[in-house]
Amino acid sequence: MARPKPLSGFPEFTPAGRIVEQRVLASLADTFELHGFGSIETRAVEPMEQLTRKGEIDKEVFVVRRLHADADAPDELGLHFDLTVPFARYVLENAGHLQFPFRRYQIQKAWRGERPQEGRYREFTQADIDIVGAESLAAHHDVELPLVTLEALEKLHVDFGVPQATMSVNNRQLSEGFYRGLGVEDHLAVLQRVDKLDKIGPEAVAELLVNEVGLSRAAADKCLALAGIRSADASFVDQVEALGVEHPLLSAGLELLAAVVDEASRQVPGRLVADLKIARGLDYYTGTVYETTMAGYESMGSISSGGRYDSLASDGRTTYPGVGLSIGVSRILVPLVGKGVLTASRSVPSCVLVAVDAEETRSAAIATAAKLRARGIACEVAPKADKFGKQIRYADRRGIPFVWFSTDEVKDIRSGEQTLADPDAWLPPAGDLRPMVVKSPSA
Amino acid sequence: MARPKPLSGFPEFTPAGRIVEQRVLASLADTFELHGFGSIETRAVEPMEQLTRKGEIDKEVFVVRRLHADADAPDELGLHFDLTVPFARYVLENAGHLQFPFRRYQIQKAWRGERPQEGRYREFTQADIDIVGAESLAAHHDVELPLVTLEALEKLHVDFGVPQATMSVNNRQLSEGFYRGLGVEDHLAVLQRVDKLDKIGPEAVAELLVNEVGLSRAAADKCLALAGIRSADASFVDQVEALGVEHPLLSAGLELLAAVVDEASRQVPGRLVADLKIARGLDYYTGTVYETTMAGYESMGSISSGGRYDSLASDGRTTYPGVGLSIGVSRILVPLVGKGVLTASRSVPSCVLVAVDAEETRSAAIATAAKLRARGIACEVAPKADKFGKQIRYADRRGIPFVWFSTDEVKDIRSGEQTLADPDAWLPPAGDLRPMVVKSPSA
Repeated sequence: MARPKPLSGFPEFTPAGRIVEQRVLASLADTFELHGFGSIETRAVEPMEQLTRKGEIDKEVFVVRRLHADADAPDELGLHFDLTVPFARYVLENAGHLQFPFRRYQIQKAWRGERPQEGRYREFTQADIDIVGAESLAAHHDVELPLVTLEALEKLHVDFGVPQATMSVNNRQLSEGFYRGLGVEDHLAVLQRVDKLDKIGPEAVAELLVNEVGLSRAAADKCLALAGIRSADASFVDQVEALGVEHPLLSAGLELLAAVVDEASRQVPGRLVADLKIARGLDYYTGTVYETTMAGYESMGSISSGGRYDSLASDGRTTYPGVGLSIGVSRILVPLVGKGVLTASRSVPSCVLVAVDAEETRSAAIATAAKLRARGIACEVAPKADKFGKQIRYADRRGIPFVWFSTDEVKDIRSGEQTLADPDAWLPPAGDLRPMVVKSPSA
Repeated sequence: MARPKPLSGFPEFTPAGRIVEQRVLASLADTFELHGFGSIETRAVEPMEQLTRKGEIDKEVFVVRRLHADADAPDELGLHFDLTVPFARYVLENAGHLQFPFRRYQIQKAWRGERPQEGRYREFTQADIDIVGAESLAAHHDVELPLVTLEALEKLHVDFGVPQATMSVNNRQLSEGFYRGLGVEDHLAVLQRVDKLDKIGPEAVAELLVNEVGLSRAAADKCLALAGIRSADASFVDQVEALGVEHPLLSAGLELLAAVVDEASRQVPGRLVADLKIARGLDYYTGTVYETTMAGYESMGSISSGGRYDSLASDGRTTYPGVGLSIGVSRILVPLVGKGVLTASRSVPSCVLVAVDAEETRSAAIATAAKLRARGIACEVAPKADKFGKQIRYADRRGIPFVWFSTDEVKDIRSGEQTLADPDAWLPPAGDLRPMVVKSPSA
């Protein structure tokens, strides 16, 4: 077998990169659990009919079938392309065993057949949180979800050096109410044009609104004025009201969005911004919508998106509304690890290499290692009896900081310091116990 | 959408079952890391040509293709059916960045299109450890690997109540040397027949050996005598030697197997047994082979198997020999969780429900929750302002042990005890901090 080449769109980490990913995933899970979200994991496949219910996405689905299935057997299963479709199915399937509101997180891979590029992969890891109610779900969860997500992302920033995140929030009721207040019938048509603002600019959007949707130039300008409003506190409310449009939906949306921004400005000042042009394309959101950029990587798109949906799922009798946010773990980590911004302090878990000076003494080395492990110190026993210098080089190549000799002396191979130590009592400095995530000083 | 039905062969856990799985996976990872194994994760797909290299298994592969790929495009990708094929590819692809001997663990799902039954699933989780060398790998790793695996399984037994595991070990050099010493040319033909011993019994195997492989009845009886040897210490060596067969490979195999059993009988007495009928079918193992049964679930087959292979992979210049063991996590957990033998002490991570007596005081409840979380106590804020009784019932349904009231009183809802407490200082009993794995007393 010749040396294989990586598959485009299917990123894999080296062992050091994987340590970064492990730490990040554990940190996210920890934050989610502190907030009472329980983990679920769903199978990788869903029935194709579920995956292709929303026509826009069907071309991106990977179909799965047994190699020896009949050639004319219908495609029945596909790999899930997000964690929302399987979660909706899981909720319906297990509704009788779940307590609502049901708070879950789900950290898993998803697959899409789209063309790979930076930030877009064919296989990628997402970390989702959702709160789902039976029949109803209180509005305060729209405030809670982005705060949990921002807390999780801020922890990645503080603990590991992941660039800081800023979340933009809007509310679809606010936009819809505003457009309706202007007399617009097809508010989604307006939303879709305004969604192109960053790509084609305000003048081109105004032309689309006038020529394609039939707005007056004055109404189009008001829509653009609304889309231009952005504030990290509730001052956006006054700015919207100054545009002189009125509608009950607009008032409701303003109130809800102000609650989100108010609470966020207290808890995570500057990290959450009301941005009234955020639309989230053709997604199924019905209220609050969220998007998040990472400082220095804005062009890559949103690293965490989501929103409120009136109906995650329905079994005909009960409807399950919810609010959810998804963190694009691969989108965050593949570039950061790939460019060397983040790495691990060593490529192996081992804190100590227990040296073996002759094969006959391997048992003694194994016994020493067992004593260290019993106190939580990861270690490995040298694979080959060898001179001290070679053992130190073995440790050095892996970044293992300590070598333990049969004389019960332990050497910090970075400083060269060597001391007598008791394998039943010795502890490494806390920072050496496990590999740490390290941010490159040059990055 | 009507209530969906589970897909046969794709097991999923309820939130409480998932907590059991999370604890088990974390425990396995912990043991592996203490022994210096680093985590890798590989993509779910491999090129079909790699997955179908070993003809026996190709019918079980799930093929993956984009929904809108050309109908006559060749099948290029499939879901991996184990973690060894992707690991071999990963080693070749990254050889320049890895340090050998390379110690890795890998906990991931794998997929097979076979017919589902207890212990056999179409999607299942495996936890693999392997040590791979460049060109050579010392024999003492054949002793190390089963001991790490048994330590990991014993920890699941002690900490969570997973039934105890017993590992059976054999060595292919031993069998091959024995057969060759009897004058047998095609030692694999003998191995394949002896492998049927448990299914068809000794008399039928003897007939196959005489009629199909051409052994004398005396030679066939010696093969059966060898297969009948089983001992938890090195006494099997004398029993084999008493059969009066000699061959250099037999001596080498006996020595290596004795080393494994000797070390194991010191470290994990009774958990590892030399069993000279273990063959591991048509697998690619070339030396030591391992199989493991779980007490009370022997009929389900091996929960952890593996062995030594002379060539995990080769790129034409370098050959990578290794030794590996795989733990069948789904095979262990799906029956135990499904039958209620193992469950979690509660279905949510939350240790505390912070009550809300009126919506206007929700902010105060959120502030209390933040103080508890800052000290690692998972909690959630009541979704609805409600009377005390309803809040207690909310907690009770989820198994949340404590309810925190706005008066800064905390109630243990199991005992009813209610005390004044400081959210900056209060700690729950250690056993209540996180959900625990509980073994059903009736199971």
